[in-house]
Amino acid sequence: MTHLADTAVYLDRINRAQAAMEQAGVDVLLVSVGRDLPYLTGYEAMPLERLTMLVVPRGGEATLVIPRMEAPRVVEQPGVFALRAWNETDDPVAIVAALAGTPTTAAVGDTMWARFVVELLGHWPSTSTQYLRSTVVMNELRTRKDAAEIAALQAAGAAADRVADQLHAGLIPLEGRTEAEVSADISARLLVEGHDIVNFAIVAAGENAASPHHHPGGRVIRHGEIVLCDFGGTMNGYCSDITRCVHTGEVPEDIARAYAVLKEAQAAGVAAGRIGASCETVDAVTRKVIDDAGYGEWFVHRTGHGIGMDAHEDPYIVEGNRRPLEVGHAYSVEPGIYVEGKWGMRLED
Amino acid sequence: MTHLADTAVYLDRINRAQAAMEQAGVDVLLVSVGRDLPYLTGYEAMPLERLTMLVVPRGGEATLVIPRMEAPRVVEQPGVFALRAWNETDDPVAIVAALAGTPTTAAVGDTMWARFVVELLGHWPSTSTQYLRSTVVMNELRTRKDAAEIAALQAAGAAADRVADQLHAGLIPLEGRTEAEVSADISARLLVEGHDIVNFAIVAAGENAASPHHHPGGRVIRHGEIVLCDFGGTMNGYCSDITRCVHTGEVPEDIARAYAVLKEAQAAGVAAGRIGASCETVDAVTRKVIDDAGYGEWFVHRTGHGIGMDAHEDPYIVEGNRRPLEVGHAYSVEPGIYVEGKWGMRLED
Repeated sequence: MTHLADTAVYLDRINRAQAAMEQAGVDVLLVSVGRDLPYLTGYEAMPLERLTMLVVPRGGEATLVIPRMEAPRVVEQPGVFALRAWNETDDPVAIVAALAGTPTTAAVGDTMWARFVVELLGHWPSTSTQYLRSTVVMNELRTRKDAAEIAALQAAGAAADRVADQLHAGLIPLEGRTEAEVSADISARLLVEGHDIVNFAIVAAGENAASPHHHPGGRVIRHGEIVLCDFGGTMNGYCSDITRCVHTGEVPEDIARAYAVLKEAQAAGVAAGRIGASCETVDAVTRKVIDDAGYGEWFVHRTGHGIGMDAHEDPYIVEGNRRPLEVGHAYSVEPGIYVEGKWGMRLED
Repeated sequence: MTHLADTAVYLDRINRAQAAMEQAGVDVLLVSVGRDLPYLTGYEAMPLERLTMLVVPRGGEATLVIPRMEAPRVVEQPGVFALRAWNETDDPVAIVAALAGTPTTAAVGDTMWARFVVELLGHWPSTSTQYLRSTVVMNELRTRKDAAEIAALQAAGAAADRVADQLHAGLIPLEGRTEAEVSADISARLLVEGHDIVNFAIVAAGENAASPHHHPGGRVIRHGEIVLCDFGGTMNGYCSDITRCVHTGEVPEDIARAYAVLKEAQAAGVAAGRIGASCETVDAVTRKVIDDAGYGEWFVHRTGHGIGMDAHEDPYIVEGNRRPLEVGHAYSVEPGIYVEGKWGMRLED
């Protein structure tokens, strides 16, 4: 349902995927639910038990294996892929296996349902076929955003920024409302500002903010506490994701001090994100500021994640990721400090 | 986030899963994202790249392997599972593999992300470990709903029925609005009637109704055409799903005739759904009515699907499924007739 690009773009992407397969020694690339599929074909499969699978051979045309009842939803891209509709009593995995022959190496989509890998193992045991994650093929493509993708990311980010501005301007009432009510309010504003879908709108008050992925609930926001808001959506196929903390009252000294450290860490992380710097360097630089200030044990997660058609994707800004940053990479820098039972804070751009 | 049951219920379910493992010769059950996890533990994992996995051995206590930052969201169930939090630089699949030893047979959750199966294959090649779908263990549990589950399904179904009543009563304006506007209206009403989440609200007008899973768009609904509405949500962890067709004007004879056949087929399918009858019999009885009336080629999908914590789950009402219906099974009967480029209709209870 994401038709950002035209046929020539999809054809180019398939060609580049095939070149990456050649280089990685991958015989067949299998892509099912998830964002690799719309990236390569413009078609997004619903996450259903009926298999949709793009079968990309190392050479020649790709085939989109699809339930017959979903076929009317496909916008055909002549030359990019052939359509192979299957009926309700067919075995779609057998169709995929027949199309792909007996590959020595198969790369399978990260978010494909496991049941289909289990069924594939019946056709291709892991002794004769080496299974790899599709990222070995797709990462070089997906992480290097082209101009249209960067523009789409900027537009989604700007829409989320406008909601963040409304939050800072006090236009989103907090005190006396429940977290769930504020979450619904933020969600509605994300849509008004142009998002097609809201992916999440975390609202966590006081002690709840110490749980990084808190599920907003019936907790009423009171005067004089921190409120962590982490929200984002999808707009024209590309994601936004931002975190802001506000305080309903005079900010106590301990929170102000920690927040100043957080802001400094975030700025340091952003500044470290230069072409050629490794992802783990950005994490280390950010973490050092928080460590040095004595909050290290409370920064319990990586510094950030890539963003694009997925809200979380490569490159991950985490210790151990030596990959250098390149032109076209897009990622978040989002340090946090979480004191269990008391408060938490995170700042994400 | 689905806390329908108390600790004793989860413990009983884990015990029954382990009994099913014993019977099926499964050494370890691995459950990640999807509904098996809240069914067994009350905890629902977000579909993220950070692995959450319940490791259930054939005997002894289960372990919930979870990213440290998500651990605060878990409601612990003493005696049901132990928690094993992993840090951002740990390898969670290695932790799972170590917990499970070297299983001869592993059953993996249907909707687990493929990347984790690929990584497991590095620890347990498919020659030494047989991989099975988790349904071999979970189906007997999940498809036989207990009294609380049936009550939850009935409540969700009743909430969706109230929206269907509003549609039939003309309270949801159609003519002059776009499909997307009507879809948003139906979605809002599902929430008002008590759903926690809207899973889908298909609205397809005229020729668009010939695509069974049409994505509602900017097409304006006109006077004198069929409008197919298929909608459902989740309420207290259990799903609703209903399809109704309405006509904006005098119903033409060809559509009236087809609809009468559809209604008769649906009634025949419902009547055929008796304890002991096979799923494929229900499909065959429904299909025969449509075949006999000459519309057979336009009924392009199975007759129905099970429903519970998932909107689509076993038992599937499809040719080839010889499984007999049992007490506690819940499923849809939803024949459809789709004439490409003209109209489509489906009736689902």
